[in-house]
Amino acid sequence: MTAPVVVVGGDAAGMSAAAEARRCDPRRPVIVLERTRHVSYAACGFPYWLGRVVEDRGRLVAHTAERLRERRGIDVRLGAEVVGVDPEARTVRLAEGPPVAYGALVLATGARPVRPPVPGADGPGVLTLRDMDSAIALDAALAGRAGGRVLLVGSGPIGLEMAENLCRRGMAVHLIEALDRLAPALHPDVSAPVAEALDRGCATARHGVRLTRLAARDGGVEAVVDGVAERYDLVLLGTGVRPAAEPAVGAGCRLGERGAVAVDRAGRTSVPGVLAAGDCATAWHRILERDVWMPLATTANRQGRVAGRTACGVDARFPGIVGSWVSEAFGVGFGGTGLDEDAAREAGFRPAAVLRTGRDRSGYMPGVREVRVRLVYDEPTGRLVGGQVSGGGDVSSRLHTLAAAVTAGMTVEDLAGLDFAYAPPLSALRDPLELAAAAVTGDGP
Amino acid sequence: MTAPVVVVGGDAAGMSAAAEARRCDPRRPVIVLERTRHVSYAACGFPYWLGRVVEDRGRLVAHTAERLRERRGIDVRLGAEVVGVDPEARTVRLAEGPPVAYGALVLATGARPVRPPVPGADGPGVLTLRDMDSAIALDAALAGRAGGRVLLVGSGPIGLEMAENLCRRGMAVHLIEALDRLAPALHPDVSAPVAEALDRGCATARHGVRLTRLAARDGGVEAVVDGVAERYDLVLLGTGVRPAAEPAVGAGCRLGERGAVAVDRAGRTSVPGVLAAGDCATAWHRILERDVWMPLATTANRQGRVAGRTACGVDARFPGIVGSWVSEAFGVGFGGTGLDEDAAREAGFRPAAVLRTGRDRSGYMPGVREVRVRLVYDEPTGRLVGGQVSGGGDVSSRLHTLAAAVTAGMTVEDLAGLDFAYAPPLSALRDPLELAAAAVTGDGP
Repeated sequence: MTAPVVVVGGDAAGMSAAAEARRCDPRRPVIVLERTRHVSYAACGFPYWLGRVVEDRGRLVAHTAERLRERRGIDVRLGAEVVGVDPEARTVRLAEGPPVAYGALVLATGARPVRPPVPGADGPGVLTLRDMDSAIALDAALAGRAGGRVLLVGSGPIGLEMAENLCRRGMAVHLIEALDRLAPALHPDVSAPVAEALDRGCATARHGVRLTRLAARDGGVEAVVDGVAERYDLVLLGTGVRPAAEPAVGAGCRLGERGAVAVDRAGRTSVPGVLAAGDCATAWHRILERDVWMPLATTANRQGRVAGRTACGVDARFPGIVGSWVSEAFGVGFGGTGLDEDAAREAGFRPAAVLRTGRDRSGYMPGVREVRVRLVYDEPTGRLVGGQVSGGGDVSSRLHTLAAAVTAGMTVEDLAGLDFAYAPPLSALRDPLELAAAAVTGDGP
Repeated sequence: MTAPVVVVGGDAAGMSAAAEARRCDPRRPVIVLERTRHVSYAACGFPYWLGRVVEDRGRLVAHTAERLRERRGIDVRLGAEVVGVDPEARTVRLAEGPPVAYGALVLATGARPVRPPVPGADGPGVLTLRDMDSAIALDAALAGRAGGRVLLVGSGPIGLEMAENLCRRGMAVHLIEALDRLAPALHPDVSAPVAEALDRGCATARHGVRLTRLAARDGGVEAVVDGVAERYDLVLLGTGVRPAAEPAVGAGCRLGERGAVAVDRAGRTSVPGVLAAGDCATAWHRILERDVWMPLATTANRQGRVAGRTACGVDARFPGIVGSWVSEAFGVGFGGTGLDEDAAREAGFRPAAVLRTGRDRSGYMPGVREVRVRLVYDEPTGRLVGGQVSGGGDVSSRLHTLAAAVTAGMTVEDLAGLDFAYAPPLSALRDPLELAAAAVTGDGP
């Protein structure tokens, strides 16, 4: 079988699929069709390059197209825009040049920014951040504008990361959030330290405000917020993304939640020979026990590897997600895993929640930081179904412990009774996770 | 029932037991008999006070005896040395003063240092670190001796923490270890970064050497190591501890592993009315499914609370340990959880191990550190039975994730498929734990 594995999209999911296909079947050609001039970059690192925490943009590129061709034998084609898929003939049509035949096709077309439905939202000076080209454009727009004013729309994780990094870049950042609080993915009890850190930073932040118009003005952008017009040097939209599913739609693939390409655990779409992975595709949620759309780099990477194997006829199965995510802004980490109360109810649980504040290390050690933990559990059974963490210490690894507990079906009692390791500079005698769980079981303050 | 709960020993386990008894039954008298003048201190913090990372020794004291008496109504008696227990009469005899009657007795007598069997090991200038008095004595011995030479015997976690903190105190530290490597509780693959960090620090370290004699000399101590005599300003022994089980032996309590007081999951000894908790007692191991002796502050704290409840007639059950411990020295964290290969074999598993080095955050982020992970799993079933971690990042929380996985009976495949959260400054796209597990399942580099 020599018909190539063709991958559309050359970043997280696509390049993982290509590399895995190459690894599983070294004799089979692997072709990557990438619309832009950039492949295999760490998009999650863009805020840190824009803030010059990472000085060299090249550091975000894992492998160049040349290197992938020469060292790995992956036929990476840049500037190759897919305009159609013919699943009967098993060919992909490009904007330019002859069609490309495939044996298996992996669609890894990612997601694209959503612009808010206000006049001027796609006008000059109104930018988004998604792929490498958008990062380069934003960098160019910032060049020589230190001290300028940026209106940042949206306070999701990437909005908050950008707020911090635009401050680092010397900009005056004005963050607005339409919802009734900042960092709306977090419960207010958990997001409070994030909002406080933002206040201490260079940024001003307002929530519950309405952006109604954007318009080019004096080389910048005039924005009308709650009826008041102000001029900014530029506007950055952090108002979410949607699946880039056009090639899949053209191929006749069934769509799932939020318009993402529906895939099974092996990465197969509803169309034979067509697979999908990453931000354009759905992902199996292990606790909800259904497909969801939650575009994240970790999932893209993993689904890409699964699709690469499936494309080669090797058995592979995406283990599923539990909804783990994490971010950091202004020195405060925050994130979550599992279900919140609404999702828990939808899944048939009877959720209750508990909040406790603990410490990341012994209280007498220098640098001790507060850690907030909010656990969501099924009240009748005590089963832990989710949690959120914010504050100091390693929020990420603390979430991994919660993810393990949620995935394993542990109860709050199991978590309270977990054998936590302790050393004064590294942890507290009672970990914040233990304290939160023990508050439910009655074994704690 | 008004016969008091009497607790022998006023630190981690004892004070936890007393506080919990007070909480469960506010009407019942609670008496704490403490041999020394100090209660309720954080012994794990001594190295950091001695190294002046913590300036004020008072910061290590959670509650003073006065405060415990006045605010909590716990009758703390200092300088009260127990010399015998009469379980028939339910009384405790003291070195001075009348016997104390009890309804329930909690023995929390801790552990005491083992001195190596060499001449002079209990002579002047040869110190140990265990309780507050020993920390004060060591501090006094260090005062005015900056630049002096310390011989540190033993490279367990406390030895290594003391090596770092004696360096901070300005001492020239000479560490010796009798076994064939430093940090012998760790597998050599995991301990390598610890040994390297020690080399970069102020300390010199030798392993596989024999201490054969200690003798007072010129206001210091002459030590003979591998036949060569050298003079040190002082010698600090970090050669382990043994249970302080004398009152329990006197009461007729059955002893368990390593001479620790055998207790059930509720904290009961073999003698009616007599409980034990903490470093003097055994602890249920959840994976080995038997009682072990592994004296640690976390266990002492938890067993103390269980014993306090049991003493009041409230149902309580110690959940057991999986052997989690962690430490840090010279900026490198290290620790373990679960079983090593030998213990795994003893428990009927057929162990295999895998080692992988990953990163604590994205490779392009400043401050990125290596993390080593070694997993031990049952080869036929893939069940994860233990692991060790060393390096940067939050070694402690990473061990908690492993502890959760081991406790829940997860396989390496389960761990490899866990939904890890990722953000460049906080974690790696593939966590070191995931990389190690994926190396077993074939889904990794």
